[in-house]
Amino acid sequence: MYSERIVVIGGVAAGMSAASRARTINPRLEVVVLEKGATVSYGACGLPFLLSGEVTQPGDLVVFTAEQLREQRGIDVRPNHEAVEIVPGQKLVKVRAGNTTEDLKYDKLILTTGAAPVTKIEGATRPGVFNCNSMASATALLQFLKEHKPKSAVIIGGGYIGLEVADALRQRNLTVHLIDRGERLLDGLEPDISDLVKNRLESNGVRVSLASEVQFIETDPGGGLAVFYGNNLASKTGLVVIATGLKPRVELATAAGIETGPTGAIRTDDRQQTSAPSIYAAGDCTETLHLVSNGPAYVPLGTTANKQGRVAGENAAGGNVRFPGIVGTLVTKAFGLEIAKTGLGVDAARAAGFRPETVTIDSYSHARDLSGKPIRVTLVINNEDGRLLGAQLTGEEGAARRVDVVATALTHRMLLKDFVHLDLGYAPPFGPVYDPLLIAAWQGLKQIGQRR
Amino acid sequence: MYSERIVVIGGVAAGMSAASRARTINPRLEVVVLEKGATVSYGACGLPFLLSGEVTQPGDLVVFTAEQLREQRGIDVRPNHEAVEIVPGQKLVKVRAGNTTEDLKYDKLILTTGAAPVTKIEGATRPGVFNCNSMASATALLQFLKEHKPKSAVIIGGGYIGLEVADALRQRNLTVHLIDRGERLLDGLEPDISDLVKNRLESNGVRVSLASEVQFIETDPGGGLAVFYGNNLASKTGLVVIATGLKPRVELATAAGIETGPTGAIRTDDRQQTSAPSIYAAGDCTETLHLVSNGPAYVPLGTTANKQGRVAGENAAGGNVRFPGIVGTLVTKAFGLEIAKTGLGVDAARAAGFRPETVTIDSYSHARDLSGKPIRVTLVINNEDGRLLGAQLTGEEGAARRVDVVATALTHRMLLKDFVHLDLGYAPPFGPVYDPLLIAAWQGLKQIGQRR
Repeated sequence: MYSERIVVIGGVAAGMSAASRARTINPRLEVVVLEKGATVSYGACGLPFLLSGEVTQPGDLVVFTAEQLREQRGIDVRPNHEAVEIVPGQKLVKVRAGNTTEDLKYDKLILTTGAAPVTKIEGATRPGVFNCNSMASATALLQFLKEHKPKSAVIIGGGYIGLEVADALRQRNLTVHLIDRGERLLDGLEPDISDLVKNRLESNGVRVSLASEVQFIETDPGGGLAVFYGNNLASKTGLVVIATGLKPRVELATAAGIETGPTGAIRTDDRQQTSAPSIYAAGDCTETLHLVSNGPAYVPLGTTANKQGRVAGENAAGGNVRFPGIVGTLVTKAFGLEIAKTGLGVDAARAAGFRPETVTIDSYSHARDLSGKPIRVTLVINNEDGRLLGAQLTGEEGAARRVDVVATALTHRMLLKDFVHLDLGYAPPFGPVYDPLLIAAWQGLKQIGQRR
Repeated sequence: MYSERIVVIGGVAAGMSAASRARTINPRLEVVVLEKGATVSYGACGLPFLLSGEVTQPGDLVVFTAEQLREQRGIDVRPNHEAVEIVPGQKLVKVRAGNTTEDLKYDKLILTTGAAPVTKIEGATRPGVFNCNSMASATALLQFLKEHKPKSAVIIGGGYIGLEVADALRQRNLTVHLIDRGERLLDGLEPDISDLVKNRLESNGVRVSLASEVQFIETDPGGGLAVFYGNNLASKTGLVVIATGLKPRVELATAAGIETGPTGAIRTDDRQQTSAPSIYAAGDCTETLHLVSNGPAYVPLGTTANKQGRVAGENAAGGNVRFPGIVGTLVTKAFGLEIAKTGLGVDAARAAGFRPETVTIDSYSHARDLSGKPIRVTLVINNEDGRLLGAQLTGEEGAARRVDVVATALTHRMLLKDFVHLDLGYAPPFGPVYDPLLIAAWQGLKQIGQRR
């Protein structure tokens, strides 16, 4: 009855987008989704909000249950089914469920195996040490918080998950020590922005240690855990959350001879097809084209995963659509502060062959007399031609959505001299008459102009 | 001592931007600003917020006083000085101040004569009838409110000023009847958006009469005013505010032989130069290029006025910069509802030779489980090639800033099929995983695709 079978490995963002799209494009396709975890189709980006209680129960993050997907969408979703081997020559996947392993043939295969936490820390598997990047790890952490009521936590990693978890745990009244090995928060924010974010964390009672690398975690003889840099004690604590970044899960792919790219993630073309015939990949296990550097980048985020999943699903179902790439937009909120970045920072821009410089301005989210809040904008500009390369913003309001304007401009390789004339909306409740983005662009033009 | 004299006629948004820019570019220039009113350099867009009390005093809207501009910026600002005639052949302006008129020579002249309310309503000058488009008219209205404490108001015109004034007067507990001759609010919002805005007004106690044209205003024998459509009484009321739109003030220019364009406003090139040598113009008295229709448009707004003023000022001072045009972005807020539009509506798009159709979706400003608010997006699309032509959004939050993304996309003539892949920021506090803009774009693609 079915014309072909598409097998999707992974049932979260990219996987469910791919499966849904394939079914929509061609309802005669059989679509099977293998998910090694118990839950499919949930919003992993909401997990920190489960810890804070802003999301009240895990089920609220689930978009569709396996049953709903089966019954309403006709997708054969199989939770607790792990793909353990791909045999491209025979077009089959070996699947383990419980104690049995069976072969599943495919016509098209879509890999959405996601990412795993990166950590070289010794003792990362001790009781009281958690991640927060899957439903299983987040619910285990939540359970620990409820049962053991730790009074303190060490968070290792100052990326967006680290910041969101810090906020959540402060809301639960734990003392929090956040440690990052980099010199700046959020994977290399520019100093002007990183400093403001660090101040905000500290003024909310978070101890922040940057340029500090945790080497091991011991069980403290007096109870709880002890976290060490080299031989130096960093903190004694009741709980450790590891949020040190992600690496693509590529073992299944590479074992099957599928190529990875320079970032270590699965390489695909712009149709999300891998180096192997009939095999597509999408989401956190893949690298993608960065439209500013014009090279491959590994930026695992839910929104990109969803878009790539749709493209992979449509193409696997016989369509022909392209995913053009990303500009690296990231937004987050912690302790009431919005933090947003897009494009390249100075280091990445230099690595990509540009001659970057930055300009930073302080302005207001909207008219000061209508209680506008301070907002800071840093633009990264190519000194040679005035091309906009990136932007970072922070403030209590109006920072996150403004970065999307820059993301759109970056997609079009916009020059600062054109950016300053953008017809952005103005009314006193929404911004100053010159939007902070345009003020920054003016300042940047002046800065470049003065030198030539 | 001065190398040249630049005379600027008009001392508000465009005029002060032009004067400041000219001085910055060349500090050896003498810059004289003639303002017929008593106040210069104020934010006219904030006037409705003065009525509501959100801006507490008129002085809060003043960016710089004439004294500050003279002393700190070296600009010779002359309030209560009216330019009554331009003599281009002699490069002079006749200026009236009090009872005297004198000649003022210029090397370069910049016209920023602004706009005047359009109204053909009889009785528009009766006591109790006001505008709200200048510091003088707004403070007179405020004074009337305080002294006469009217219990009711009729607002004629459902543009952004009409809506903002309606909000302000409801905050002061007046009953409000808003009348617009068009079938939809805000100068032709698409029906899906206009209906939501109308509902919001009505649920806040505003009586709304669309497709209704006020012909005259009488003094009511029982006190107060009576507002009529033809011979039919529309309302008896204590106060009338006329907010029926603006027409460019071009009399001074046309008397001097300066050309106007098809919109009736002063025509300039992209350097803001008029048809007359050494005479520039900027702001609400000029028309400008609409980057979507590719034709001249009259869209008088403060933000455009400021940008054009800077360009006019720089060029008058010997520079060579261009103002590329606008895409018609407008944002406002009334009764807690953000309303935003950019680009062309269906009617304007058809007039510009496109084959427009619309797509409307309802979504949320951010994750529903984090108390996201409903948001509605209407996109206007060219049916022939899938080009994005315009967007309108409304919702309690997240509508205004999102329109800037579309404004940026319109500047680059973006196609819907590329727009859906924009790398917009996502985190649960800021939006659903597919931003409402992208959901609308997907829906639009589907709609166009189904037909071809």
